[in-house]
Formats: sequence, C-alpha cells, structure tokens
Amino acid sequence: MKTEHGGDVEGFVRRYGAEPLDFSVNCSALGTPPAVLEAVRRALPRDAWQYPDRQCRRLREALAARLGVPEGWILCGGGAADLIFRLMLWKRPARALLTAPTFCEYEAALTAAGGRAEYFDLKPENGFALGPDYLDRLEGGAELAVLCNPNNPTGRTADPGLLRQAVARCGQRGVTLLVDECFNGFLDQPERHTLVPLLGQNPHLVLLGAFTKLYGMAGLRLGWCLCSDPAVLEGMAAAGPSWGVSSVAQTAGVAALGETEFVRHTRDLTGRERTFLTRELAALGLRVFPAEANYLLLYSPAAGLAQGCARRGVLVRSCGDYRGLSDHYLRVAVRTHDENLRLLKVLAAALEEADA
Amino acid sequence: MKTEHGGDVEGFVRRYGAEPLDFSVNCSALGTPPAVLEAVRRALPRDAWQYPDRQCRRLREALAARLGVPEGWILCGGGAADLIFRLMLWKRPARALLTAPTFCEYEAALTAAGGRAEYFDLKPENGFALGPDYLDRLEGGAELAVLCNPNNPTGRTADPGLLRQAVARCGQRGVTLLVDECFNGFLDQPERHTLVPLLGQNPHLVLLGAFTKLYGMAGLRLGWCLCSDPAVLEGMAAAGPSWGVSSVAQTAGVAALGETEFVRHTRDLTGRERTFLTRELAALGLRVFPAEANYLLLYSPAAGLAQGCARRGVLVRSCGDYRGLSDHYLRVAVRTHDENLRLLKVLAAALEEADA
Repeated sequence: MKTEHGGDVEGFVRRYGAEPLDFSVNCSALGTPPAVLEAVRRALPRDAWQYPDRQCRRLREALAARLGVPEGWILCGGGAADLIFRLMLWKRPARALLTAPTFCEYEAALTAAGGRAEYFDLKPENGFALGPDYLDRLEGGAELAVLCNPNNPTGRTADPGLLRQAVARCGQRGVTLLVDECFNGFLDQPERHTLVPLLGQNPHLVLLGAFTKLYGMAGLRLGWCLCSDPAVLEGMAAAGPSWGVSSVAQTAGVAALGETEFVRHTRDLTGRERTFLTRELAALGLRVFPAEANYLLLYSPAAGLAQGCARRGVLVRSCGDYRGLSDHYLRVAVRTHDENLRLLKVLAAALEEADA
Repeated sequence: MKTEHGGDVEGFVRRYGAEPLDFSVNCSALGTPPAVLEAVRRALPRDAWQYPDRQCRRLREALAARLGVPEGWILCGGGAADLIFRLMLWKRPARALLTAPTFCEYEAALTAAGGRAEYFDLKPENGFALGPDYLDRLEGGAELAVLCNPNNPTGRTADPGLLRQAVARCGQRGVTLLVDECFNGFLDQPERHTLVPLLGQNPHLVLLGAFTKLYGMAGLRLGWCLCSDPAVLEGMAAAGPSWGVSSVAQTAGVAALGETEFVRHTRDLTGRERTFLTRELAALGLRVFPAEANYLLLYSPAAGLAQGCARRGVLVRSCGDYRGLSDHYLRVAVRTHDENLRLLKVLAAALEEADA
C-alpha cells in the first residue's frame, strides 16, 4: 500500500497484542448514533441480499432535503475517497494544484489517473493557514485544484472571503475546484464555511461530504458529492463500478440524516474538549496548532512519541508521510473527556521517556 | 447511468407500487446464510465505527485457506465490479477482447480507462458456446482479454481444454487474461472449471470471484481477485480508493467462508430446479439455452414479455442492452421451487397476452 492512514487497528493488534485506544482517526467522539445501528440491524436481511439501488434514490432525497439542493446535484459514493478517485479518473487532469500538507487520497487518485501534483505549501509559521498568494497559483495552468476545508491534518479552515475569491478565480480560469467539506460538521459555525450556497452559480465547483466522521460510520463507507453541472456527476458515475454504495450504507445514511440532536451534541462536546485538549497539550510542552475541527496537529522536537504512545496502548497519527510534515508532527482526535485524559497521561509519559 | 442491470427493485416499486418477486438478479435461491447475518449484527457497533482494515487481513487469510493459494495472491474489493474497474484502470489496455454477450461492467470499466473493446461474438446457433476460433482472436493485438466462466447472461461454461489453451496462448502473446469465476460455485463440478490451479504457472492470469451470488450478499459488496504476480495486485490496489471493502463486508465474508453446508445445499437446489425450469419453460414454447449455473437465458419471438411479467409482479432481466441479444431474450434466475412455479405461471400469462 502506497499511502499511510490512521486507524490501522488490525495492524496494532497484531503488533501489540491488544486493542488500542484509537486517537489516530478523526471520527465522532460519540461513536455511531444508536438509531443508525438499529436501522441497519432491522434492514439487514434485505440489505444483505438485495443489490444496492445504484442511484441511491432514497438517500439522495434525504440529502437533498437536508442540504437544500436538488437531488440532481448529488452523487453518492463508497466514502469520500471513492468520489475523489471518480473525479480524478473522469477529469484526468494533467496537472492539479494541491495544498501540502493535506489528505493523501487526492494525490493517490491524481496519480492513478495519470496526473501530476503541484503543491501550494502551507507553512507552520503561519499556523498552516491558506494565504492570499494561493489565488495567483490558480493561474498556473492546473486544470483542477483541491482544498480540504477544514484541512486535514491541520484542522484549519480557509478564510471564507479568500475561499470565495478562489471559487471566482477558478471559474474565470476554467479550473475545476474540489472543496472537501468532510469535517465541516464539526466546526462551531458550519454554515459560515460551507460553499453549498455557491453551487448554483458555479458549475465548476465540486463539494465533498461524508458520513464517515460526523456520524462515526467509517466502516460502512459512505460519502456524497455535490455539483450543479450534471455532466460532472454523470462522468463520475461512469468512472467507477455501478454499485459503489452498499445497501447497508444507504440505509445507515438515511437514518443518520435524522440524527440532528446527535450532531448538535457531538459539536458541543467537540468544541469543549478541543479547548481543553489544546490547553493541556500545550501545558505538556507540545506545540498545538490552532484547529477548528475534531482533531489537533501537534509538534514536538522529541522523537518517537507515536511509538511511545503505542507501547502504552494509545494509537496516534504520526505525520511523517505528509508532504511538509515529519514524524515530529502528530495528529490526535478530540474524543470524550475521560479518553482525552488518558491521552494526556500517555503523552506525558512518552515525553518523559523521550527526554530521559 | 450508462449500463443496465437487473435488480432495480427501487425502480420497480416506484413504478408498480409494490415489491417484485425478483428473477432479474442471479443470487442464491437460499438468500444470505443466517450465520452471516448474525456475524454482521454482532460485530456491527465496532464495524460501523472503525475504519476497515485496508489490507483485509482476516478475510484474506480465510480465503487463502479456502482456495489453497497464498494470501499474497489475493486482493479483495467492493464487489467484483470494483476489481474489474481497478484492473482496467491500472492496466489501461488500448484494446481488449471481450465476448458478446457478456456482463457489461467489463466494457464500462474498459471505456472509463480509455480503452476500446473488440468482440468475439458468441452465436445463438451454437448455444453461445465459446468456439476454438477464439484462440486466433487472441493473436489480434489486444493487451487484455476477458472471459466470464460460466458466462453471464448465457450460463455456459467454456470447454476446460479450450480454456487452458487460451491461458497458454495469452501467456505466449503477453496478453493479460481476466477470467471471471463469480458463478463457478453454482456449477455441478466447480473444481472441473476453476483455473485456480493454473495461477502459479501463469502470472498473466487474473481470476475474479465474488460473495455476491453464491452467498446472497449483493447488497454488501464483496469480491476477490487472484493473481500470482504481485505487481498486478499492487497496481490494482493503487488504482482505487484505500478503503474499498467495508468492515461489514469483511466480517460477512469471513463468516460466509465457514458456510460449506449452505453452499452444498444451494448447489443441490440450483441443479434440481435448473433442470425443472429448463423443461417447463421449454414446454411453454420458449427457447431455453443450455445453462449450467443459477440462471437461464430464454428466447421468445413474442414481444413485451418482461413488461408482461412486471405487471404481474415478477421482475425478469430483459437482455436488450446486451450486445448480440435483444428484448426478445430474457434472463431469469433459478430460485426455489415455489418461486419458480410462480414464474412459470406469470410467464404463461404474459405469453398468452402477447399472442392475443
């Protein structure tokens, strides 16, 4: 496997002989809504046997109602990664502009599609914020640009004004702009950051969302993609297998969209614990980058912290495989208070060990 | 959606207001093994939340033991269609040799990968059997060839001797040969037809299998691919998203591989009912092509039979979108005896209506 990811629990178990407390994935601290599990259990005999609805009709109707967009603007996929591959394989950009660091599936998909990545480097000295010089880079001839907002692994959003300028610049230059909003639901003010209201006027804008993180459904594989240009969605549908979304995932997605209270609760908990963790991690001497979602990017001059945590039963995401970062950077999820306390204890011990 | 498929139950319900009895998909007459449903239910809270194991380690171990091949020869995917797309997108054949009629995802994937299909036309006058002239077509410069064995929608196997010659010819000519064995488990003598024993000596041979049909798991999306050349599997892994197989599907697959009694029972029932249906459908005046799996290809000069069945609550697969066939061809699954009796009754009524 070319790229690294968090969440390799099976690998952890095989190496350390026990389940980790997993801070390496960015999924909801509250797990999966019980109503989703119940809906899946109830529908299982039928969902297992029957071919999935290739058009995901019920799910798209529910998403359309929730997001306030026409059903025709929605394509569902087997997780956001499936949709990223479909977009790249359909569009086949010779060159695409990515930020660094960012989620590695953009580059993996671009490479699989035969394209070449160019990077706009986000700088630690700016807290990995997107700067206005990004706009000029959109003039460089790339046919496609990708922004992850808030960005993974930094947790930073782009300034909403700058983002709107980027959308306009891409429109002028004929650049397809993919904005990955998979973590939007964890922000304190999601509606301030989402570009959904811009879709109608900007057929070159493609938005990505997922059930993976906000609804704790990583194992089921379900994401969506929004675009007001039907040719884009048709192209993406044809660029991958016919049944990209399992029946189980469709059932789970419809049930999840009814869970507004769960989302509010997740957002409240995440905000509170993000503040707590940011303060306490800094108190341990770690550099904590300003973050707005449900995960934090940390830096320490000490080496081997991820391994030190692993030996103590806690899995964190070492960021050595991200362009622009190194093993000195760690990404940790914001989880429940008791779990966060355990992370702090384990990190303190790992830091002490590294100093010794 | 470019291609047609059976199993559009949601579309049927929206049109006819009720669930059909579905003969349009080729899945096990016995449904999903109860042990599979139970395993999925038990593991659900964890499987929903946790990212899937990208390497499908437990499932590949179970498959390796079952199939008698090393784990390193196995790649799992989100259904056979996912693996077909991955192979085409990795290999990017400029030209590929397909048979006609056959399963349409081969061509869909080839087209998505920018390749052009050439066809070896199977003839109704030969019962759609693969003839020895196929071997010469392998010399025509296609970089990849696909055989579905037994073929979908005809239900015919290729002669085992001819198939071995095709493998050898492909090896001599540097042609990658994909043999789709998704329906092998329904044959009376599966071991007589599978090419698994040839894998070690033929690194250009890629075999495809799926849980979809034999274990009634179409809704979960799970298939596997076998090849003794690690470069092929690595290329395919990189040609699609990182988490192609959901945790639920991995759990279901491991459980399904323990269900040997269920498979034996399915095979017995299918053989008995295939004989019964073949005889009774012929008695209705339909032409029934010789078939060996769990579905039958029918021909009738009467028009509108599929619609006539649909109005009576039975969904059959009209074959008008298959190259080399027309709406006068229908594919029907072999189901349980009572269900098959209902199909016969409904087809008789539809035929009478067509004559009137």
